[in-house]
Amino acid sequence: MSPNSGLHFRSIYRFRSGKGTHVEDVLAVEEPLDIRIGKRSVAITMRTPGRDVDLALGFLFSEGILEAGTRVQAKVSKSNVVTVSLPPEATVDWKRLERHSYTSSSCGVCGKTSLEQVYAAVPYGDTVSGARPIAPEIIQSLPAKLRAAQELFSQTGGIHAAGLFDPAGKLLHFAEDVGRHNALDKLVGHYFGQDLLPLDENILLLSGRASFELIQKAAMAGIGLVAAVGAPSSLAVSLGEELGLTVCGFTSERGFNCYCGEERFSGL
Amino acid sequence: MSPNSGLHFRSIYRFRSGKGTHVEDVLAVEEPLDIRIGKRSVAITMRTPGRDVDLALGFLFSEGILEAGTRVQAKVSKSNVVTVSLPPEATVDWKRLERHSYTSSSCGVCGKTSLEQVYAAVPYGDTVSGARPIAPEIIQSLPAKLRAAQELFSQTGGIHAAGLFDPAGKLLHFAEDVGRHNALDKLVGHYFGQDLLPLDENILLLSGRASFELIQKAAMAGIGLVAAVGAPSSLAVSLGEELGLTVCGFTSERGFNCYCGEERFSGL
Repeated sequence: MSPNSGLHFRSIYRFRSGKGTHVEDVLAVEEPLDIRIGKRSVAITMRTPGRDVDLALGFLFSEGILEAGTRVQAKVSKSNVVTVSLPPEATVDWKRLERHSYTSSSCGVCGKTSLEQVYAAVPYGDTVSGARPIAPEIIQSLPAKLRAAQELFSQTGGIHAAGLFDPAGKLLHFAEDVGRHNALDKLVGHYFGQDLLPLDENILLLSGRASFELIQKAAMAGIGLVAAVGAPSSLAVSLGEELGLTVCGFTSERGFNCYCGEERFSGL
Repeated sequence: MSPNSGLHFRSIYRFRSGKGTHVEDVLAVEEPLDIRIGKRSVAITMRTPGRDVDLALGFLFSEGILEAGTRVQAKVSKSNVVTVSLPPEATVDWKRLERHSYTSSSCGVCGKTSLEQVYAAVPYGDTVSGARPIAPEIIQSLPAKLRAAQELFSQTGGIHAAGLFDPAGKLLHFAEDVGRHNALDKLVGHYFGQDLLPLDENILLLSGRASFELIQKAAMAGIGLVAAVGAPSSLAVSLGEELGLTVCGFTSERGFNCYCGEERFSGL
């Protein structure tokens, strides 16, 4: 792997005890990779650039599309595209491939070839940027409240949660799942079913990392402030910035990092 | 959520300083959910049971398939199937839906309707169960070695890794990515490209949790022993057990839990 291929350098605000300071930080890069056999797109997956040919071959093999021992040629044909060429005699399970067409391991980009297509689909773009200021101390208080409410995590250690809080930091609803995206879908679905969208003045807390797809789902629900206990990816921050969301990471009782939309916080 | 809907109780072996003891443990349940609009399957996602209607509605909304305010009826029509019924006048982006057909947020189950289809695809079933015994102390030593080798995690805190070790605990190769599945695909692809599969005598260490799809990918590559730093899901353990793999979790320098295939360890 080339030294910096998976890293993205960025100026952020680091909040400690309510006070924000400007620091330089490093994010893990997340970008879509289009895996093709010949001219045919087999999958688009969100990945960290680097070892792209290995990723394409490993994906095609472990999904049962290519057999071990198949002599293939694979190359990065342009940025974020790997093209795999097969010898004429190669055995490929095309039926299996058909079922995988436009599948993504990190859903939310499936069938979307650009960020523009995501932006176009967000229905509540205007409400997000109009939300009221929040005191940074509110954000720090959220992880402990979500953990206290989680039934499953305390027993298994293997469950993600998504919690929605009001602007004063009161937990309104939360959902749990082995999948981060599912936990957020369960949360948004709860409000969709009651026709209570958008959730524009509220705060979303994610128990893990914030990927592109989670920011996309938050934006779809009109949520303007997303705080993650883990790190955000580069693309999560890019999308949040483009849509006017505030994206925070490494949220704990000691403080958090704000990667974009820091103007949302009072007293900065 | 009903109290125990997302929990799976199981007898496991807990290894501390090389010695295994039999204890009862709790796993987070992971099962496929088929999300349908009418009779049409829109997505199969691996999730923790509970709030399935919320999950289906949230998924359909956040993926842009249903608009907010659409009056829908949704019900669990049978185990692991949610059927959403729309009013005749509902606006559905069917074109978008088509692109999502058989998409899964947790790839590896896409287009597969049962575990049997996964089992049938694993090419190295016999080699896995024939692997030689391993000393439990080897497993405990792996996380520190992988962390030392990781370039990206130390800087960003947001990167998963998959590392392959030989039976003596020597790190052979590793790969990093924001996605757990991608890190493993990169690792397997590295060996596929050199026609070095199966990897049957080696040990796979995952930096995060072990889901169904990661065990499936390991089994495809003929890896017989998977140790995760985080927790495995219930389905990950079921699949490992069915295929004769040894699945470990919560791996640290202090010890680890073994969820199935404990006969692989010497001295038990």
